Amino acid sequence: MGEIAQGDDVANAIAGCMKRHDARLVDDDIVVISQKIVSKAEGRVRRLAAVEPTTQAVGLARETDKDARLVELMLQESVAVLRRKKNVIVVEDRHGFVMANAGIDRSNVEDADSVLLLPADPDSSARRIRAGLEAVFGVAIGVIIVDSFGRAWRNGVLGTAIGASGVVALIDARGRPDRFGRKLQITEIAAADALAGMATLLMGEADEGTPFAVVSGWKARADAEGLGALLRRREDDLFR
Amino acid sequence: MGEIAQGDDVANAIAGCMKRHDARLVDDDIVVISQKIVSKAEGRVRRLAAVEPTTQAVGLARETDKDARLVELMLQESVAVLRRKKNVIVVEDRHGFVMANAGIDRSNVEDADSVLLLPADPDSSARRIRAGLEAVFGVAIGVIIVDSFGRAWRNGVLGTAIGASGVVALIDARGRPDRFGRKLQITEIAAADALAGMATLLMGEADEGTPFAVVSGWKARADAEGLGALLRRREDDLFR
Repeated sequence: MGEIAQGDDVANAIAGCMKRHDARLVDDDIVVISQKIVSKAEGRVRRLAAVEPTTQAVGLARETDKDARLVELMLQESVAVLRRKKNVIVVEDRHGFVMANAGIDRSNVEDADSVLLLPADPDSSARRIRAGLEAVFGVAIGVIIVDSFGRAWRNGVLGTAIGASGVVALIDARGRPDRFGRKLQITEIAAADALAGMATLLMGEADEGTPFAVVSGWKARADAEGLGALLRRREDDLFR
Repeated sequence: MGEIAQGDDVANAIAGCMKRHDARLVDDDIVVISQKIVSKAEGRVRRLAAVEPTTQAVGLARETDKDARLVELMLQESVAVLRRKKNVIVVEDRHGFVMANAGIDRSNVEDADSVLLLPADPDSSARRIRAGLEAVFGVAIGVIIVDSFGRAWRNGVLGTAIGASGVVALIDARGRPDRFGRKLQITEIAAADALAGMATLLMGEADEGTPFAVVSGWKARADAEGLGALLRRREDDLFR
């Protein structure tokens, strides 16, 4: 797939790429899409040279040894800074995602002076791309938009859902029996994140990376919208 | 696959099940195995009636509204209690895993009065099962043992690696270029957890669940041992 530029239609770009490879979507496929191409298409690139950091950003940048203009963008995208240390800023962003650097990425952007923000409304992006792909292929599918998140307690990033449409993001297994007929102890399964993690592993991070993957055969497509159910409410969370 | 009992050979049980289904392992396959059958085979079932809770366990049980005998087992398996509230105890267990309830499970155990601890040494279990499967099928494979973990900040559980053999658990991408030839920002990828998450989703939690899955085509098998690289050191961790 070629590079995506601002204003490009992500659904058409994916459909075109699939058709060139003699591939097509079928009912119940789930298309997992890297945040990067969605953000680029939506014009979420920011030139650092155009950013004027506030005093708060300058202070936090000094504490963490980061570029103050980058920190300014992180603060603009966030509602709270949860942790900071040299080279690390963990925020709660305005979508409710707890993540490093507010998901702002310096990799895979053409211009070394530019950075890429997350999509403004990833659930809406997913819904729009889904509608586009459904129209092209005449099918009912799901879409998950993913980014790579670090985790508390464990090293390494894991692809994580940041937007969804047409997918059961959180499976509610309450009331289901275990193998011996008793109530199952585990009651909610983060299906969208499991799909996001595997698809991101296959998509890759480096220069050979591909920006989307198709999950076939997983029958959790639904008319469900968004991934709000995956986000723990702040008041229920023991780690922020 | 039938029920696993104490003393059963997990590798033989998996191999027998595959053969009955006319399936076989090939080089580079990764066999993902539920902690539950490993723990059962290793005799990690504990009868609650035989547990004598300490004063500390009784206090923590009262605080969290849990069974004091269950809490006693959690404390025995843990080095620190990180968070507690009604119905929730998050510990760092003696393997270094940060998880709810020290991974102790009341579901899927025949006897309602019994619980299942994690394997005593999941990396060793993985190594032993790998050797058994490699001998049966004459192949070089990887093994990941998984359990379902909750996460900070997000609802729902995700299958997570607790033991590994013959798998690159953490991919080190340092020095690799991004699409535009610059240094990649994301440098470590939690491959074993991505595989664990997807395989666990397919294996399922409920009564129709199957206790293992085979990943084919993912070429990250290696002579690597263990998943220590996935565990963030306490001194590097901002959330415990």
